[in-house]
Amino acid sequence: MQTITADILKKVIHQRPQNSFKGTFGKVLIVGGNPNMGGAAIMAGSAAVHAGAGLVTIATAKENLTAVHSVIPEAMFVDYQDAPKFISLIKGMDVIVLGPGLGNDATAIKVIQTVFANVESSQILIIDGSAITLVAQNAALTTNATIIYTPHQMEWQRLSGIPINEQDDIHCNQEAQQSLNATVILKKHHSEIYFLNGEIHKLMVGGPAMATGGMGDTLTGILAAFIAQFDASFEDRIQAAVFTHSKIADELAKEKYVVLPTDIISYLQKFMKKNCG
Amino acid sequence: MQTITADILKKVIHQRPQNSFKGTFGKVLIVGGNPNMGGAAIMAGSAAVHAGAGLVTIATAKENLTAVHSVIPEAMFVDYQDAPKFISLIKGMDVIVLGPGLGNDATAIKVIQTVFANVESSQILIIDGSAITLVAQNAALTTNATIIYTPHQMEWQRLSGIPINEQDDIHCNQEAQQSLNATVILKKHHSEIYFLNGEIHKLMVGGPAMATGGMGDTLTGILAAFIAQFDASFEDRIQAAVFTHSKIADELAKEKYVVLPTDIISYLQKFMKKNCG
Amino acid sequence: MQTITADILKKVIHQRPQNSFKGTFGKVLIVGGNPNMGGAAIMAGSAAVHAGAGLVTIATAKENLTAVHSVIPEAMFVDYQDAPKFISLIKGMDVIVLGPGLGNDATAIKVIQTVFANVESSQILIIDGSAITLVAQNAALTTNATIIYTPHQMEWQRLSGIPINEQDDIHCNQEAQQSLNATVILKKHHSEIYFLNGEIHKLMVGGPAMATGGMGDTLTGILAAFIAQFDASFEDRIQAAVFTHSKIADELAKEKYVVLPTDIISYLQKFMKKNCG
Amino acid sequence: MQTITADILKKVIHQRPQNSFKGTFGKVLIVGGNPNMGGAAIMAGSAAVHAGAGLVTIATAKENLTAVHSVIPEAMFVDYQDAPKFISLIKGMDVIVLGPGLGNDATAIKVIQTVFANVESSQILIIDGSAITLVAQNAALTTNATIIYTPHQMEWQRLSGIPINEQDDIHCNQEAQQSLNATVILKKHHSEIYFLNGEIHKLMVGGPAMATGGMGDTLTGILAAFIAQFDASFEDRIQAAVFTHSKIADELAKEKYVVLPTDIISYLQKFMKKNCG
Repeated sequence: MQTITADILKKVIHQRPQNSFKGTFGKVLIVGGNPNMGGAAIMAGSAAVHAGAGLVTIATAKENLTAVHSVIPEAMFVDYQDAPKFISLIKGMDVIVLGPGLGNDATAIKVIQTVFANVESSQILIIDGSAITLVAQNAALTTNATIIYTPHQMEWQRLSGIPINEQDDIHCNQEAQQSLNATVILKKHHSEIYFLNGEIHKLMVGGPAMATGGMGDTLTGILAAFIAQFDASFEDRIQAAVFTHSKIADELAKEKYVVLPTDIISYLQKFMKKNCG
Repeated sequence: MQTITADILKKVIHQRPQNSFKGTFGKVLIVGGNPNMGGAAIMAGSAAVHAGAGLVTIATAKENLTAVHSVIPEAMFVDYQDAPKFISLIKGMDVIVLGPGLGNDATAIKVIQTVFANVESSQILIIDGSAITLVAQNAALTTNATIIYTPHQMEWQRLSGIPINEQDDIHCNQEAQQSLNATVILKKHHSEIYFLNGEIHKLMVGGPAMATGGMGDTLTGILAAFIAQFDASFEDRIQAAVFTHSKIADELAKEKYVVLPTDIISYLQKFMKKNCG
Repeated sequence: MQTITADILKKVIHQRPQNSFKGTFGKVLIVGGNPNMGGAAIMAGSAAVHAGAGLVTIATAKENLTAVHSVIPEAMFVDYQDAPKFISLIKGMDVIVLGPGLGNDATAIKVIQTVFANVESSQILIIDGSAITLVAQNAALTTNATIIYTPHQMEWQRLSGIPINEQDDIHCNQEAQQSLNATVILKKHHSEIYFLNGEIHKLMVGGPAMATGGMGDTLTGILAAFIAQFDASFEDRIQAAVFTHSKIADELAKEKYVVLPTDIISYLQKFMKKNCG
Repeated sequence: MQTITADILKKVIHQRPQNSFKGTFGKVLIVGGNPNMGGAAIMAGSAAVHAGAGLVTIATAKENLTAVHSVIPEAMFVDYQDAPKFISLIKGMDVIVLGPGLGNDATAIKVIQTVFANVESSQILIIDGSAITLVAQNAALTTNATIIYTPHQMEWQRLSGIPINEQDDIHCNQEAQQSLNATVILKKHHSEIYFLNGEIHKLMVGGPAMATGGMGDTLTGILAAFIAQFDASFEDRIQAAVFTHSKIADELAKEKYVVLPTDIISYLQKFMKKNCG
């Protein structure tokens, strides 16, 4: 198991090529935000925009249209129950985040089914929050996409069957992760990333100032943007995103007792500039 | 009667434990905000988020969905007239704030009844604003929860029967408070806190720059967050919250003629960091 | 004709009394904002909040509920077509602003009629924008309130019958103003204020950086807050409000090519603190 | 072909005349923003307000009313499907932007038809985004207005018939532009402006930090404001607007990895003040 260091930032975050346009930096789709948790999808989308994704769309409940346009006018909106529009959007995306604020009712399952049925193996699918639980509980939910799961410990228990108090056993975690045929970012005090190539990386930055609602949603947006826009290896892009998220929190925690997701979003552009290789 | 001093801050606001997660810092539910006064519930919820509560939900009129998600995406929304969802939420909460912008019509009474019927004695219930008046006027409104009332002087008159011009008599106030079997934060120039253990504490910070609409709503959110997340005694957590609210106002009043609730909310994170023990 | 100087600020803006509460600083009602111009009423209300009014309510089209709660959660909302609620609110107000973004259709006339029929002579009524035009065109629109008109030159032409190119004649303006039995703030390069006591005051601050949509709406909110909260003479409070509005613009114009209404609103609290007597 | 230099700024951006009012600085109408892309129209309108246009209205889908009033209260809203109001507004405008977030469905075509049928040759019409594609595809869409197209390279291919890989041939571009009888701002790495007088100007500022969704929408708002308010030649106003947009991005890119459209909007007022001749 290797520790992720600040070196990962300059390795991944490069100066953008002069002759580039927004398409160069990828298309990201955030899928989530039921009427009760619209803010989660908005924070994920806002994080993706601020982290440099070329084009960001938020597929969410129709009730969230105005909040999306008000909070992050740079992003586009689609009603995730408007099947024709939603499906046609999915097909053109580089990275899809599925889960922030999605909930766990019948609509959520329908949304997951729609995404799973329309993604291809070349597309990266980040599965977060209640979508992890629903996938764990519904064996019928399968997909061809390249999957990254971002469970916290209870979600990992549901997905892997490993009780929380046995999750210190990285070999056990890895065995479960490999059988899922997916990358797993296990979020906890000192998060761990399990890659399909067998590497396990541990995050030693981040702290308790981050323990607040919406922090995981924000991570998914940063992950999506980093994967969509950078050229480093898949593994390096993921490590850089995870490190960025927690390292910003550490810096802001010097002045703030609790660091909010929206604080991290606001600081992304400057942090990435300072740590650009 | 004792004066609350700045010492209370370091006594209550501690460094967060390294191995913690959002659940460690409690679940807060704000109940209020009819269509005319949605901002009150939003300010209470926003204050709770910025003061470090782990998870914050705002139960309010359905008309306020978008304003909630736009102003404080970190918070969740629930329609307080959607009884099944509302009731199931109540059961899992550590602290509930009832009243900011709730109004005094039939819907408000129904909402109070729903909260009162579903809380347990282990849950802290902060009753504010028009909810105080409605409780004072409806003897049928009773509950098992651990109650904190936050009346201003006219509301205290309604609740205690003590006319405003006789409220300088702390023994009289205390007698009424004890018979209510509740903690009372009497908001006025130099607010007083009456605890069930017989202690009375007086606040000597705060000033007229705070005399503006929404200031009390903001206090309830800070109270809820402090009670939900800290380990100090119940009495100390309440004093620290009340002190924080007014002390921030005093600091901001050095530069601002009137200090708005949203100004206080924006400064909470830095103030708590500076005064962390 | 006298020039308004900075002395007016310290004469009017005093330290708030220690033993005060939000009611001490007055109740302000903004009436305006049809669905097309909701921002106008929001800016007027936001200016009133930031300028220190104790309690601010915005009576506007029902479509603007969410924008009100999102932009200025400190303010309350009422649907100006909900006659019972609207009328009961009017009765308790100290100062009412009628006009920002109200438009000139049948709804606007109905709203003006409702206000005019329910105000009393002890209440201050600031009439702005299209409401001035409608009053000029409908002789049937009369009221008992104490009136302040805030016309720009074209509106003054409609109200007084004096063509713009003859409005340099202050005696002519004064004669028309006296026959209206109202205070008139004639907005132009170097605005003039005509009082019922015969005084005429001229403003020599302010400049072309203020020439942008919404600037007049913002003035009405500052006027309302100053009249509602301060103890100086009626004439002095009005002069101080008008001076504050333009003087802030001049200060901000040192750094900004155009000064927006929302810029002025953001600076009110600090400006008032710096110029507090 | 000439390079646009910073000299263009002081040549165009002058101190405003003392005796001016909002009408002096022109009326701008932004037409765009379907329910999925409301943010695009809001950013264009917000840019126009911050760049100094006297009065800005946003004609957009009715779903976007609240987002408009929340994000930019200085702007007015109109439902672009409310034909009578929309048409009457068009007639009074100095500059109209058609396209940001308009989409390409039947409603979009109807909106374009309404604009095209109601503008006159004295009005400036900036055609952007999907409106360019729709015009390219529908020969029946013709208008008398003075047209500026702002295509990126794919849109220019559709409009001119010139494949992207042949667009380095400026004579070929110019021939197509002249036959369109319109000014063309060809957006790419080092954008080019083709004027009807035969001049071609090249932009050497701007960079890849600008490659993000919404950047073109923001440019249209700045263009509209500069054309509406300044007295320099038509060609100079356009060059100054294009230069301002990219030069601000370059300045902000010193501190930010990606520069967002809303970052540029926030900096417009200070940039214009610093570069005022």
